[in-house]
Amino acid sequence: MQGWKDYQEKNKDRFLDELLELLRIPSISANSANKEDMRKCAEKVQQRLLEAGAASAKVYETAGHPVVYAEKIVDPSKPTVLVYGHYDVQPPDPLDLWHSGPFEPVIKDGRIYARGSADDKGQFYMHVKALEILSKTNSLQNNIKFLIEGEEEVGSPNLADFVAAHKELLKCDVILISDSSMISMENPSIDIGVRGLAYIQVEVTGANRDLHSGVYGGAVGNPITMLAKMIASCHDENNHITIPGFYDDVVASTPEERKLMAEAPYNENEYKNDLGVKELWGEKGYTTNERTGIRPTLELNGIWGGYTGEGAKTVLPSKAFAKISARLVPNQSSEKITDMLLQYFRKIAPVGVTVEAYNLHGGEPYMTPINSKAYQAAAQAIETTFGKKPIPVRGGGSIPICSILEKELGVKIVFMGFGLDSDNLHSPNEKFDLVNFYKGIETIPYFHKYFAS
Amino acid sequence: MQGWKDYQEKNKDRFLDELLELLRIPSISANSANKEDMRKCAEKVQQRLLEAGAASAKVYETAGHPVVYAEKIVDPSKPTVLVYGHYDVQPPDPLDLWHSGPFEPVIKDGRIYARGSADDKGQFYMHVKALEILSKTNSLQNNIKFLIEGEEEVGSPNLADFVAAHKELLKCDVILISDSSMISMENPSIDIGVRGLAYIQVEVTGANRDLHSGVYGGAVGNPITMLAKMIASCHDENNHITIPGFYDDVVASTPEERKLMAEAPYNENEYKNDLGVKELWGEKGYTTNERTGIRPTLELNGIWGGYTGEGAKTVLPSKAFAKISARLVPNQSSEKITDMLLQYFRKIAPVGVTVEAYNLHGGEPYMTPINSKAYQAAAQAIETTFGKKPIPVRGGGSIPICSILEKELGVKIVFMGFGLDSDNLHSPNEKFDLVNFYKGIETIPYFHKYFAS
Repeated sequence: MQGWKDYQEKNKDRFLDELLELLRIPSISANSANKEDMRKCAEKVQQRLLEAGAASAKVYETAGHPVVYAEKIVDPSKPTVLVYGHYDVQPPDPLDLWHSGPFEPVIKDGRIYARGSADDKGQFYMHVKALEILSKTNSLQNNIKFLIEGEEEVGSPNLADFVAAHKELLKCDVILISDSSMISMENPSIDIGVRGLAYIQVEVTGANRDLHSGVYGGAVGNPITMLAKMIASCHDENNHITIPGFYDDVVASTPEERKLMAEAPYNENEYKNDLGVKELWGEKGYTTNERTGIRPTLELNGIWGGYTGEGAKTVLPSKAFAKISARLVPNQSSEKITDMLLQYFRKIAPVGVTVEAYNLHGGEPYMTPINSKAYQAAAQAIETTFGKKPIPVRGGGSIPICSILEKELGVKIVFMGFGLDSDNLHSPNEKFDLVNFYKGIETIPYFHKYFAS
Repeated sequence: MQGWKDYQEKNKDRFLDELLELLRIPSISANSANKEDMRKCAEKVQQRLLEAGAASAKVYETAGHPVVYAEKIVDPSKPTVLVYGHYDVQPPDPLDLWHSGPFEPVIKDGRIYARGSADDKGQFYMHVKALEILSKTNSLQNNIKFLIEGEEEVGSPNLADFVAAHKELLKCDVILISDSSMISMENPSIDIGVRGLAYIQVEVTGANRDLHSGVYGGAVGNPITMLAKMIASCHDENNHITIPGFYDDVVASTPEERKLMAEAPYNENEYKNDLGVKELWGEKGYTTNERTGIRPTLELNGIWGGYTGEGAKTVLPSKAFAKISARLVPNQSSEKITDMLLQYFRKIAPVGVTVEAYNLHGGEPYMTPINSKAYQAAAQAIETTFGKKPIPVRGGGSIPICSILEKELGVKIVFMGFGLDSDNLHSPNEKFDLVNFYKGIETIPYFHKYFAS
């Protein structure tokens, strides 16, 4: 549509400036020190939604960080799209690996570098700007609702309650989420599933205090050594996960599905070069796309214990800790796997140490059908602006709220991610390409158009 | 000697105040930020040595932290005792486990709580005060030299050069060191050996950046998982160290030596209760005293990688690190074992990650004969003030400088440690019992008396 294109072209610098302003707010949901930044960010989102054409926008309190809700109802008899996104971001650590401040966005080589640029401020903001285009060009044919939360990166602990308490408000025909990626701009794709998550912390205690490693070394259980043994026991020589029952509920993909997946563009050398590794690692018998899409995994997210400073300290530490998470696929249950992990680590505690394990967060895997009207509208929109039919793929990440949203609102989710796997999500130097940002804004109005028709 | 006793009794409060003043200086040799504190501490030691009766005392520059040397030569034809000690301390981390500030000494229940109270400020200061007693009561019959260094806790990297360059200055008949412990005040003991040390750091690198554990999890080597596997491979099910060749040079203790060791007082329940553990851990076939005395060990001193903050971050980290050290026994060589460890970790690097390993510090094991005149003088001194013959024991800690001192100066070392294993060396809440401090000061003059006669 020429009118949409003209409007975007005229306003594109302002669109970017507004996003940069959002990116400057350190809305780290995991850090209690950023509580006020979270509120500030929510209020800024509310303001921008109103300016973009929402008839109403409100910041709702929750037991945790606030939720932003906005809507533009053109005609209650028309289809309603609920856009879900999140304004919170991952912690930026390790800070010393960033080339510029995580909350001081810079544009370099056509990319926006900042924490949250792709995950998810840059992506949900495309929807805010798409609303603006549709509103200002008087071409909105359906109803749009926005649900922008502030706790996605910590497992959305309060969103389920919020959704359950506001079912009527959030009533819709489809939920649209841009919080994932495409294969590439040349090979646009649509995620048809996300993995679930079970995230635990394990704490190993030896003696009741740090000890001198000379005086006690060799006679008392070392919690780091024991934790290492426990972690080492989780994968066998084929990199299968050894925890009893872990794979029990996995729905195996059919040979046809695997054949289709194998057709997606993938260049192993490019993949390895991008990551700077000589060899890949993974479960025997599966390809990289399968390992990150249709197979569950168990990853160590963090470990610490003893002396970690400069030089040498001859300490036999009292405690060691690890953060461990599993990515889950249909039909694994986050709760069941969490319990399985907790029980496993408690049970294999070696002699000489005690082990505590507890749940940090989780979410269910989610799949969306490709024959729905909403999926077809998304595919058609992408084909319109990219000139190429999108490939359906299984995403490796998790959006824990998906299964809750579907359960509470009774509708399916469609993923329209415009990021790239190389966006450094959750890593230093997170970025979002300007061309992806603008292409997303260009594409989303077509989704509404096709879905409304 | 009544004169010594009277002098000590009259001055005991000042002796303690002076020690507390030393303990307030955060002389952490491993932290470059404490460079000025190191100098301040060296100068304070110099001042106290002069006040105590040293004829001269000087702060010598080295490539690292300064060395304090002092002497009182009564008659060049008389025997000379060189007292070795160190004014540097271990880093105080983890700070949150201290009940009071590590550099704000407090006296509680008859104990001095502070970093360095036992290791080694409190112990070398007993020798300074013993010199004062001998000087002020005009009863010094031999020559005393002091060599108080500032880099013991980081492996004395510059002391060998200093000693080699000052052989004439340091010439002596015996080296006396109080940097170890006794079994208890009821069961005084003398260390007849210390273990050697090989301390390395291992760095495991997976991808060239931190990754999203959902997008890449399962397809790329996780450096924490790999590091854990490497660590887990170091001990077998009997807690023997599996590194090829590790035990090759160990001189096995004779059945007679082991029988003697078994006679030392040891109560396993008390030992476990003190440490707060239900079960001990160690090499099969050896007792606790043997595990910490005559057997080499491999301990994890620190580990870190990935996200270690509050909450959950779904990161697949780029790097993981470990600090690993071995305690060595005669005739293991620190250099040889260090190389062995470095080669081992480089060689077992799993597919998908790269491993770097490098030496942090080390020192040779050391044994002292119990039939020497100096050992006999120490044993007699302890019997005089404790009313009980000391038991010869093998210490578990390391004093890397021992073998260097012996090699350069051509004399043996005698250990007169007045600390206790429960002094929390290298741990939070390090302490030194007042009674031990004063008993040490009372005992040391007798050593000089018996050694001079």
